[in-house]
Amino acid sequence: MSEGTAPAAGEAAAVADEAARERLSYLRGSIDNLDAALVHLLAERFKCTQQVGELKARHSLPPADPAREAAQIERLRRLAEDARLDPAFAEKFLNFIIGEVVRHHRAIADRTQETGEPAEPAAG
Amino acid sequence: MSEGTAPAAGEAAAVADEAARERLSYLRGSIDNLDAALVHLLAERFKCTQQVGELKARHSLPPADPAREAAQIERLRRLAEDARLDPAFAEKFLNFIIGEVVRHHRAIADRTQETGEPAEPAAG
Repeated sequence: MSEGTAPAAGEAAAVADEAARERLSYLRGSIDNLDAALVHLLAERFKCTQQVGELKARHSLPPADPAREAAQIERLRRLAEDARLDPAFAEKFLNFIIGEVVRHHRAIADRTQETGEPAEPAAG
Repeated sequence: MSEGTAPAAGEAAAVADEAARERLSYLRGSIDNLDAALVHLLAERFKCTQQVGELKARHSLPPADPAREAAQIERLRRLAEDARLDPAFAEKFLNFIIGEVVRHHRAIADRTQETGEPAEPAAG
């Protein structure tokens, strides 16, 4: 069986693979577009949290705000569900971003002489 | 000195704090808007990588593609620089996302009987 059908089957497989590769390339184009949008939105988000950090450091506002963070997580999980994104991943994502924000706020607090206390958390 | 000026200084500080709190609330509104956009773009990105995972599993395409990943990282770092986002963070972000994609692709490969090999990486 294999000797007669192998070449045809191989050809069909090659055509299918070619179509698959084209589809892959198409999907990757979308992924690249989305990544560019994500990077730009992240840049804008950090511009906002940078200002938040400076504001808090200048006005001795509490750097951490657990109620705000809890509300952000709850809201993002809800939005994720609506968008059919794993809510646990959305929460992980926010925590990942907050980790970077904390790093930035600490750096701002270190540069700010007006307050004596170090900046902790702050989801922004 | 402190007894005569303390109330006025306290009042000025209270006004400044009120303005700071208003500004904080304004910035948080922007952060919330950006987070909603980020979550929806991430949802769309996972829809793409989900299709990539299924395609690769069905067509026995190599799950990992180091050249593609290197190009993605290079491109994102460049985009981040243009947007004044820390390129190192952009790379960290992509790796964070890829980690989740790998988890998804593994799950897809586990469900796919057509290929015998497990799905590894794949930045999408």
